Formats: sequence, structure tokens, C-alpha cells
Amino acid sequence: MTRPQKQSGRALAEHLNPGVHEALTLRYGHILPGMAETISDVAYGEFYGRPGLDLKTRYVATIAALTAQGGQTRPQLKINIAAGRKAGLSQIEVAEVIWQMALYGGMPAAINALNAALEVFEEEDAK
Amino acid sequence: MTRPQKQSGRALAEHLNPGVHEALTLRYGHILPGMAETISDVAYGEFYGRPGLDLKTRYVATIAALTAQGGQTRPQLKINIAAGRKAGLSQIEVAEVIWQMALYGGMPAAINALNAALEVFEEEDAK
Amino acid sequence: MTRPQKQSGRALAEHLNPGVHEALTLRYGHILPGMAETISDVAYGEFYGRPGLDLKTRYVATIAALTAQGGQTRPQLKINIAAGRKAGLSQIEVAEVIWQMALYGGMPAAINALNAALEVFEEEDAK
Amino acid sequence: MTRPQKQSGRALAEHLNPGVHEALTLRYGHILPGMAETISDVAYGEFYGRPGLDLKTRYVATIAALTAQGGQTRPQLKINIAAGRKAGLSQIEVAEVIWQMALYGGMPAAINALNAALEVFEEEDAK
Amino acid sequence: MTRPQKQSGRALAEHLNPGVHEALTLRYGHILPGMAETISDVAYGEFYGRPGLDLKTRYVATIAALTAQGGQTRPQLKINIAAGRKAGLSQIEVAEVIWQMALYGGMPAAINALNAALEVFEEEDAK
Amino acid sequence: MTRPQKQSGRALAEHLNPGVHEALTLRYGHILPGMAETISDVAYGEFYGRPGLDLKTRYVATIAALTAQGGQTRPQLKINIAAGRKAGLSQIEVAEVIWQMALYGGMPAAINALNAALEVFEEEDAK
Repeated sequence: MTRPQKQSGRALAEHLNPGVHEALTLRYGHILPGMAETISDVAYGEFYGRPGLDLKTRYVATIAALTAQGGQTRPQLKINIAAGRKAGLSQIEVAEVIWQMALYGGMPAAINALNAALEVFEEEDAK
Repeated sequence: MTRPQKQSGRALAEHLNPGVHEALTLRYGHILPGMAETISDVAYGEFYGRPGLDLKTRYVATIAALTAQGGQTRPQLKINIAAGRKAGLSQIEVAEVIWQMALYGGMPAAINALNAALEVFEEEDAK
Repeated sequence: MTRPQKQSGRALAEHLNPGVHEALTLRYGHILPGMAETISDVAYGEFYGRPGLDLKTRYVATIAALTAQGGQTRPQLKINIAAGRKAGLSQIEVAEVIWQMALYGGMPAAINALNAALEVFEEEDAK
Repeated sequence: MTRPQKQSGRALAEHLNPGVHEALTLRYGHILPGMAETISDVAYGEFYGRPGLDLKTRYVATIAALTAQGGQTRPQLKINIAAGRKAGLSQIEVAEVIWQMALYGGMPAAINALNAALEVFEEEDAK
Repeated sequence: MTRPQKQSGRALAEHLNPGVHEALTLRYGHILPGMAETISDVAYGEFYGRPGLDLKTRYVATIAALTAQGGQTRPQLKINIAAGRKAGLSQIEVAEVIWQMALYGGMPAAINALNAALEVFEEEDAK
Repeated sequence: MTRPQKQSGRALAEHLNPGVHEALTLRYGHILPGMAETISDVAYGEFYGRPGLDLKTRYVATIAALTAQGGQTRPQLKINIAAGRKAGLSQIEVAEVIWQMALYGGMPAAINALNAALEVFEEEDAK
């Protein structure tokens, strides 16, 4: 059976993170063939592209989770903050989501993630 | 200086989790005097009661975070799912937020939290 | 484009955890349509079914990870220990993998996971 | 070279958790020979028995860590709270250490661990 | 009702981390108004300023927790090590607390945090 | 009683990470006397040197665990990837173990660890 939603997975990936598929293929394709396809198909096709929750709210969830985990995956947190901004989150909404995580992941984790957000916002302003 | 927003912290706590202040005082007050006040003042007064993000979205963030951390604090996850429902999240929105966390906290953590959500939903239906 | 490997994902899921697809559909299908398909397609089709690493070694990795995370997803740890046994891991190999995690996730996490393993082994012996 | 401090490791284990060595051997010895010896030699001989920090303070550190990790290893948290009490921590000191972890591991993790502490205190009172 | 202990929260913050309130306001105030006040009022007023446990022991708990979480919030770990030193912890006590965490957060987490501590100690010596 | 296996712990440490004992002593010996001995005796003597699981498989477990924990201890992850390579893991096997962790520690954690692995592989190629 064909899985037509996969096409929209790839398209959604490209819309939210332009160039992501090619960048992943170039960086990881030699050692993990098919990894870029899996990310598009899975993250975007099977999860972000699901009905039932709008994209903006999905990024609230993602930013909250990566913050509460301690911001140890800072590059990916920054990519998701940037994508969340594209999906409609204001800078203040991003900051509020992160700051609230002080209650669940601790204050150091929240401050750590706020610093990542400030870097994303500065890059936006620099454009 | 008086801090009038604290009153709304207590009121918000009571609105979202009726009886929580008295329950905390009864259970923990003998060993941690002032703990119930801290929870009301801090969690609700300093965080949930902030402007900048609506309550419903705040619960999306909380449910996402507790899920991604592995659902190891299941009783508190259930309390927050119930409060999120009261703040306007549909059962499907709760489930979608949790399921998306498979991408960030892993599939076992997401399934674990889904089971907690199903328990909350069953308790709702039993009312 | 059809994705023929997905079929083997479903078949692999069924081989390692008989009845898993139907069980997931029954339990979660009403609130998360397509979730069981995603698990088969993703976990088994996109990851466990990949070439480059044999199944037995893949379960070593999974059991190690769930142990080091603190065994907070105990039901899923037990499912993966049982599947790892089916993929060829001896009881002693499972125990050694878990115990080594004392170095990375701490001794309490390792002991916690050992207890889960002992439960799986007792269920095997009871058959 | 003989390592005489190991003897004190075993003795310290026995002092803080009477019967622990035999219990571990009985439960895990068939599948992990030498595990009980490793726990005595390592946890007590190489760490708790070190000079430079008194035992009472060492248990503060341990209780704090297990709390901040989410209390997912609740049985081990309870064992360490009981041992910390034996090393001189008051019930209030234990509760204060745990509650402070709300700042670092989140409020749900702290409340979760407080519940474990209350169970230990109740068992003490029941003696 | 006025909450007089809040004043001591601010004073305690200033004593342990001179300039922290102004630094937080400058860095985060534009996007999270009131955040610096929350940190002073909550972290110092509601937690560190509580009776029942001396400050030095409170920093033992904090350093232990941040170490066991993997040192992923290294800047905040360093701030707390420096504050713990000011509250009376010796360099050796700090190192012993961290190293003991090898048992609970794993050896890599402990070594990671030791490196952060060495940086703090070098900055002390450079003064 | 002498513990002859400790000698093999030291020898195994030296074989897998040449110079590690002296490097640890130089860096940490002044503040944590005996720490290098503990690492050799415990990590290598009590765990890696155990029978029941070959070294190559032990490194699969370690790499999986450090990846799933979010790669927050990146220097130690790189050391273990390098040691795993020496114990017989191919670059592709290392990459497959890490990538599979997307299912358990989340995609950001897996990508984070893949980047660490690529750095190790580049250092190998540069020799």
C-alpha cells in the first residue's frame, strides 16, 4: 500500500526547516543510509503532520520537552524554537513556555534554554 | 510591600485543583511548614498566573515535559492532565501532545504517559 | 512511491512481540488513530529492521538505554527484555548489560532494572 | 597488594544496611556472581568510606540526587533515606533536602520523593 | 498580607551571588518581566532561606543534584559551586560530593561536573 | 584477602584507554586522592573485566546508554566510542547503535551523539 502522507512529511520538513533533508543526507548519508528519509517520514510524516493538534501547539510541546530535559540538546532546541517561530509562536510565547519549565525541569534547565532562545531571537533580528 | 498577585495564585490553584491547598497542608504541613503556601504562590502565582500565555497552552507544555521525562512522576502527570482538561484541552489534544513526545523522550515514555492519560479519561467517564 | 520495507516492519513486530499490533490498536486506536501502524512502521520498519546491526545487538542497546534512564518505563523495559531473549540474548547476557549500567545510570537504576529482568525470567520459567 | 579498606567497606555496608550483603547474594548471586561484593567494595569501600566528607553529608548528597532524578528508583531512595537517618539526619533535614530539589528536578519530582520519605518515617514510627 | 521573608530572599540572593538580580533583569527582563523577582523570591525566599537546614548543607544538595543530572546545566552548576564555597564548603568537600555522584548519575556525569568544579577553583585561585 | 582481578582492571584500562590512569591522577589526584585507582578498579576491574559478555558488546551498551541520556557527557561519550572501536565495533555499528536510540532517548539526543561519533571517526581518519 502506498502511504501518500509521507509526501506531505517531506514537504512539511522542507517548509519548516528549509534544506534539512539535503543537509542530513550530506552529513550522515554515508554512514546511515536512509536516515534523512526516516526523519522526514517519521518526525514530520508520522507526528508533526498528524491531525488533532495544530503545528503551533506541537512546537509548544517540543520546546517544553527539550527544555525540561535540561537543554542538553541545545542545537536541536534552537532548530525547534526557530521552527516554532515559523509556525506562529511569538518570542514572548516561546519565553513563557521555557520559563514555566522551571517548575518541571528545574530553574537551571529553564535558564539554559532561555539562553538558547535568546540566541535564536538575536539571529532573527540580525536578518 | 504587599504582593497582591499571590491571592490570585491561591485562587487559581483552588480553581484548577479544588482542595489542593488543604490536602497539601494536611499531608506535608507537619514536616514542611509553609510548603502548601509555596506551591500556591510559586506554581500558580509566579508561573501559571503569568500573562503572555493562556492556561490551556501552559498545560500543553507541562504535559509534554512530564511525558518526555519518562512519566516517572505519574501521580503528578495525572493531576496535570486533569487540570489541563479543565483548562480546555480535549482528550485528543492531550493524547496528541503525549504521543508526539515519542520523538523527544522515546516511545516507551510516550506509551507510559498515554496509559496515565487513559486512566484520567476513564475517571472522567466514570463521573 | 510504495515503501515495501514497511511490510517487513509489521512482520518483524509480530515476530518479536506476537499480538502487539492488535493490542495497540485495541487500547489506543480510539484516541490515536494510526498509532499502532506508526509503531510497527517506525520502530520495526525504520529502526529494528535496518541492516548494519543484528537484532540481538540491537536489544543490547535498547536494554542498556532503558536501564540507564532509570527504569522509569518498567513495562516497556520488560517487553524489550522478553524480545531480546527471543532475539538470542541469554539471561546472563541480559543481566550483565543491565549491571554494567551501574557505571552510567547509577547503581539504583541498575538494581531497579535487574528486578524487572528477574520478573521476566520468572515468567519464562513459569511457562 | 592487599586492599584493607575493602574490609571496612563490607563493615560499613553492614552497619548502614544490616543484612544487605546476604540479601543481595540471595537475590542476584545466581545470575550475577560477585555483584554483592562489588556493591560493598565499590559503594561503601570506594565511596561512602572515603575521608573528606562525613557520612551524614554524604546521605544529603545521595537523597538530593535520587530526588532530582525524579524518584524513579523509589525503593533505593527509601533505602538511602533510612540509611541517612541512621547516619544522623533528622526527619526535617531529610524533608528539607527533598523539598529544595523542587528547584532543580521540578516540583513533581520533589513531591514524589517526599511521599517516599513519609513512608520511611511511618515505618520508623511503627517500630 | 505582607510577606516579609521576601526581603530576605532578595538580600540572600545578593549575598550569595552579588549582582545576580540586576544581571537577570538586564538579560531577561525585556522578554520575561518579573523573572528576576521570581528567582529571588522563590529560589532564595521560599527555599534557600527556609529554616531547618543550614546553607552549607543546602549547597551540598544542589551540587549533588546538578551533578547527577549529567552536568548538562554547567553554567548553573558553576554558579552553585561558587555560592557553596561562599557558604562554607571546602574545595575537597565539593569534590567529594561530586565524585560520590558516580554511584547515582554515573561516572561520566561525575567527571563532567568535576571539570566544572576545577574551573571554579582555578578562577578562585586567579583572584 | 588480595584481589588479583584488580591488576587486570588496571591493565584493561591501559589497553583500552592508553595513558588514562596517569592522566586522571595528574588532573584530579590533588583534590581526590585515589580517584584514578577507583576508576581502574571499578569500571574496568569490577565491570568491563567481568566474564559473561564480550567487550565489544559491553561498548554497545555503554554507547547506547550515553546516547539515550542526551549526550550531555559528550567527552566521555567520545572516549567510549573510541574504546568501542578498539574493542571491535565498526563505524557503521557505532552509528546504528546511536541512531536506534532515537526511539528511546529521542531524535535530538541521537543526532547529538551522532555528531560526537563523526568527530571520533574524523580523528581516526586523520591519524
